[in-house]
Amino acid sequence: MPATPVPERWSRVALTRVDPHVDGGRWPIKRVVGETVEVVAGLIIDGHDLLSAELQVEFDGAPDRTVPMVLRYNDEYVASFPIERIGRYTYQVHAWTDRFGTWQDRFRRRVEGGDSDYEITSELLDGMALLHEAAGQARGKDRKRLQALARAFEEGDVKAALSEEVLELARQYDPREGAIASPVYEVRAEPERARFAAWYEFFPRSAPSKRPHATLDDAAELLPRIQELGFDVVYLPPIHPIGTTNRKGKDNAPVARPGDPGSPWAIGNVEGGHKAVHPELGGIEAFDRFVHRADALGLKVALDIAFQTSPDHPYIKEHPSWFRQRPDGTIRYAENPPKKYQDVHPFDFESPDWPALWQELKSIFEFWIDHGVTIFRVDNPHTKPLAFWQWCIEDLRSRHPELIFLAEAFTRPKMMYTLAKLGFNNSYTYFTWRNTKSELQSYAEELFQTDVAEFFRPNFWPNTPDILTDYLVHGGRPAHVIRFVLAATMSSAYGVYGPPFEHVDNNQHPEREEYANNEKYEIRSWNWYDPHSLQPLMRRVNRIRRENPALQYMRNIRFLEIDNPEILAFYKQHEDNLILVVVNLDPHHTQSGWITLPMNDLALPWDASYQVHDLLGGEYYHWHGARNFVQLNPHVLPAHILRLER
Amino acid sequence: MPATPVPERWSRVALTRVDPHVDGGRWPIKRVVGETVEVVAGLIIDGHDLLSAELQVEFDGAPDRTVPMVLRYNDEYVASFPIERIGRYTYQVHAWTDRFGTWQDRFRRRVEGGDSDYEITSELLDGMALLHEAAGQARGKDRKRLQALARAFEEGDVKAALSEEVLELARQYDPREGAIASPVYEVRAEPERARFAAWYEFFPRSAPSKRPHATLDDAAELLPRIQELGFDVVYLPPIHPIGTTNRKGKDNAPVARPGDPGSPWAIGNVEGGHKAVHPELGGIEAFDRFVHRADALGLKVALDIAFQTSPDHPYIKEHPSWFRQRPDGTIRYAENPPKKYQDVHPFDFESPDWPALWQELKSIFEFWIDHGVTIFRVDNPHTKPLAFWQWCIEDLRSRHPELIFLAEAFTRPKMMYTLAKLGFNNSYTYFTWRNTKSELQSYAEELFQTDVAEFFRPNFWPNTPDILTDYLVHGGRPAHVIRFVLAATMSSAYGVYGPPFEHVDNNQHPEREEYANNEKYEIRSWNWYDPHSLQPLMRRVNRIRRENPALQYMRNIRFLEIDNPEILAFYKQHEDNLILVVVNLDPHHTQSGWITLPMNDLALPWDASYQVHDLLGGEYYHWHGARNFVQLNPHVLPAHILRLER
Repeated sequence: MPATPVPERWSRVALTRVDPHVDGGRWPIKRVVGETVEVVAGLIIDGHDLLSAELQVEFDGAPDRTVPMVLRYNDEYVASFPIERIGRYTYQVHAWTDRFGTWQDRFRRRVEGGDSDYEITSELLDGMALLHEAAGQARGKDRKRLQALARAFEEGDVKAALSEEVLELARQYDPREGAIASPVYEVRAEPERARFAAWYEFFPRSAPSKRPHATLDDAAELLPRIQELGFDVVYLPPIHPIGTTNRKGKDNAPVARPGDPGSPWAIGNVEGGHKAVHPELGGIEAFDRFVHRADALGLKVALDIAFQTSPDHPYIKEHPSWFRQRPDGTIRYAENPPKKYQDVHPFDFESPDWPALWQELKSIFEFWIDHGVTIFRVDNPHTKPLAFWQWCIEDLRSRHPELIFLAEAFTRPKMMYTLAKLGFNNSYTYFTWRNTKSELQSYAEELFQTDVAEFFRPNFWPNTPDILTDYLVHGGRPAHVIRFVLAATMSSAYGVYGPPFEHVDNNQHPEREEYANNEKYEIRSWNWYDPHSLQPLMRRVNRIRRENPALQYMRNIRFLEIDNPEILAFYKQHEDNLILVVVNLDPHHTQSGWITLPMNDLALPWDASYQVHDLLGGEYYHWHGARNFVQLNPHVLPAHILRLER
Repeated sequence: MPATPVPERWSRVALTRVDPHVDGGRWPIKRVVGETVEVVAGLIIDGHDLLSAELQVEFDGAPDRTVPMVLRYNDEYVASFPIERIGRYTYQVHAWTDRFGTWQDRFRRRVEGGDSDYEITSELLDGMALLHEAAGQARGKDRKRLQALARAFEEGDVKAALSEEVLELARQYDPREGAIASPVYEVRAEPERARFAAWYEFFPRSAPSKRPHATLDDAAELLPRIQELGFDVVYLPPIHPIGTTNRKGKDNAPVARPGDPGSPWAIGNVEGGHKAVHPELGGIEAFDRFVHRADALGLKVALDIAFQTSPDHPYIKEHPSWFRQRPDGTIRYAENPPKKYQDVHPFDFESPDWPALWQELKSIFEFWIDHGVTIFRVDNPHTKPLAFWQWCIEDLRSRHPELIFLAEAFTRPKMMYTLAKLGFNNSYTYFTWRNTKSELQSYAEELFQTDVAEFFRPNFWPNTPDILTDYLVHGGRPAHVIRFVLAATMSSAYGVYGPPFEHVDNNQHPEREEYANNEKYEIRSWNWYDPHSLQPLMRRVNRIRRENPALQYMRNIRFLEIDNPEILAFYKQHEDNLILVVVNLDPHHTQSGWITLPMNDLALPWDASYQVHDLLGGEYYHWHGARNFVQLNPHVLPAHILRLER
């Protein structure tokens, strides 16, 4: 084995780690405009020398700022920078030996330790040499000043040598020999709506209308109500022409009866595909009016993008090569043997013609972006190649950084997390099935208090058109209140499939954990202005969210001790705003217990007397010290949303 | 912003993570011959297709083995391989879509679900096409068999299509389109002694001798004793000529008195430097005899490598450029202002002539390797550049993979961990100052039960010539027994600076946490065969370690509940061997408590009656169930080392 040559370049400074990062920098971290990135770098140097470090920040490829990194403890150097714009930030750590700082520190100790004049004078000459090096980097008056200081050193000016001024100048113009640089880490800076939003889903064809099938103009009449209820995002299931071949009937019946409207996810017929609006919804012009009306109300419209076709979609004839074929030449429908889904064809992302297919699918997003849509709920992204999403989202975002993509992937964690890493801003979660205190708490801790929070931003949904859980069915109205309050307070981003939820429709399909008389397959009528429904609760909770910044963040959740396993309690704090949420998870019985507050963390004296205001129920409670009593009757109100009044 | 082109290559399979790894593969993991590496890869694929994965292992650059990876749960694929030789293993994960496996799985469900004959026949044609692809990869009889199977498919042979044979063959010759590969991860495979060893340190000049200054031949007479006490490694402080200029006297007195032998760390005088042996120790020939004698006894000799010189070292005159100079041209001595260490000069690793310096320093190791040394204790590596050590150790190890380097870096954790990552096999630790139950337990959990164990292998020392802790001073003999038992049982690698320890020398220097009459500066005489010393305890503990494999590992430590904070209890298990260690940490008072055993983990019925044998004290105890009583009088024996007798 030949001898290893000495390294061509080496540095005394070594980087051990940079936080935050996702998979060592393979994926960006996520932040929202208004937030801050605090970067911590582990940096070491041999011996007792000092080192200097700085953070270089760029925005969209141009320098943004340079921030000196400050030693905290245990060789950790810290710097922060604000996220001010939507787009792509990068950060990189640079570090080098602080030769002058090291010299001055030792020189000070020599002076204080009483070294001889000879030694002091001699050491000043070493310091002078460093100043000459620095002067070589400087220009103008700084250079002149460094040269003057060098002369002062030569003349034995101890005071100048110990000055803050010389330290600052010498550091500023340090030649930075042997500087090292970390990898470049990326931040995806997103709109605030990616973290703080309330989504409302409904089927526009069920809007009040003179016709059996409502149009988007009818649906637009509901927008003021949705806005008044406090929602930010109006999410519509697919609005495209619906196939007729093999159309499914009520509750997924294999054969539709005359008049059955079909599932909006069976996309496309002779009247168009993914870039068309169902004529019965009023066509593209009605959609444009819908978006316009929403915009005027400050609501954003989210569209469902489902990459699959009905057998009648124009693509089938125009691009048969985009679909998998059976050996007999017919186009494969979706199936999970022995189940067959004969009303739907999946695309073949591995088709020999895949580049054209991918471009066309991307152009579907572009079509709707051109019609004012900036939020997309993507149907089953985990059944399409990850490489497609990464390319598609990256390209769209490069021109439209404000876009928000919600991944509807109810699947295993690694896939859900990978979709979030590669570009989806929001993700559906297991919240929907986490019912007990320990389930909710451990899941929230995973999402909000581990590194998962750097890349995965949940959107909590208590129900969807596909999911009506047993908990909601058996717990009735109290269960609905419980799940709504949990979704809207644990996560700052949440959504609800509104109409059946607000009317506590707990009529479950006999075989599946979903709604009977499912709106996916039929048009239903709802009371959109019902004071006995959950609408007033939704209005109140959304208002509390808007008025209390603590509820507009995710990572600030902290669970509280309470001596009753049926009661979940947590608090969230943002600056002065402190919200305590206490929820009785038992929809049937009154539960009570003693809650323990971390008085120190809340900056309260251990024996403080204070008032908490239940923003949900309206009451004021006088509490004393750390332990206080709570009692919640689910048939009255199963939750407190308490604001600490200071 | 121009549109992003579609990716040139992409795969449906994605790798989320590979474990184990150190910093994402930047540094190798460490294993010892006889151990196994279990690799876990997170692998996902869109949709419901199956994927195949295998682990490719190489040893020293040549293929070692290929191991199929098996799906465990949650998208984790697992494979293991054994470490059979000292050197450099690498492992890499490969994964691809299992197209035939996916086809067969669906086909089986079609058959079981009662698909029509037409559909079955049609699907068989798709399977046939896959077999033809596989046949294209195969040769000889496998190719013929695949072609025959393809014909069987064509003829509608359902049984052949569902066979294990066709699955195995088709998988074996899968064209692996779109296969992905992980980064290459490295394993540093080390000798067993890097994990399991007992080190004994002593100053050879203090060996029994007719002269005031013993030789290595005198010291060699102690080797049978050291071997008989059960130690594996004999570690000698520096054995080189000692400088006379500014020589330190007793207990670091600034001026030596006539006859003071000087500190062995003040290396070099006119008689030679780092490649010479102090003439009073008998020169290099005596050293060679010492090594020979040790070898014959199965003992390894460890040398101290301290890269610094006395003012009299030949390098000072021969290579003044290897040292830092003051502006007046004199060579700088070591200092930490205002403290000065005028008997020692550090090397200038940044000298303009650094490549020659580095080569020379490396050649010092080579010199001693040529004289039979394979273990080096490196003095203060954290005050020399990390890049030097990385280069030096990597080069030495490339020709001598059996070498073991112990880093004497008592400094901050990031530096200690980085030295371990870049190549040191063993490290001194904070064990020396961790005295309480919670300190010991949390430190052991950090070292043995986190990813730290992948790269950092501790060597626990209760004392060194530089360290006599307050705990040992105030706790006297019981404290010595406690610390010895803890070092030797918590860590499978440990060491002791023997002579003062075995005689419970707790005479501390008035100003420093080190021995008074420190052997670093003077020759002392010891009773090497003293039945009243701790020698019998050492002998017994080392024998217990040799006879019980559980104590030869580190990562198997598991702490036990006991209701007394003064008692530390843990167990270690290896195959059938189970050792329970119970230590009273209070050197002054008898402590007792109820210990709780995890009966399930120990594969014992909850109400089992069993016997534990105290290998240290000799007693047998009959225990029953999970909770049992222990009581330890430190003045008799402060510890149990219990073997569970099954």
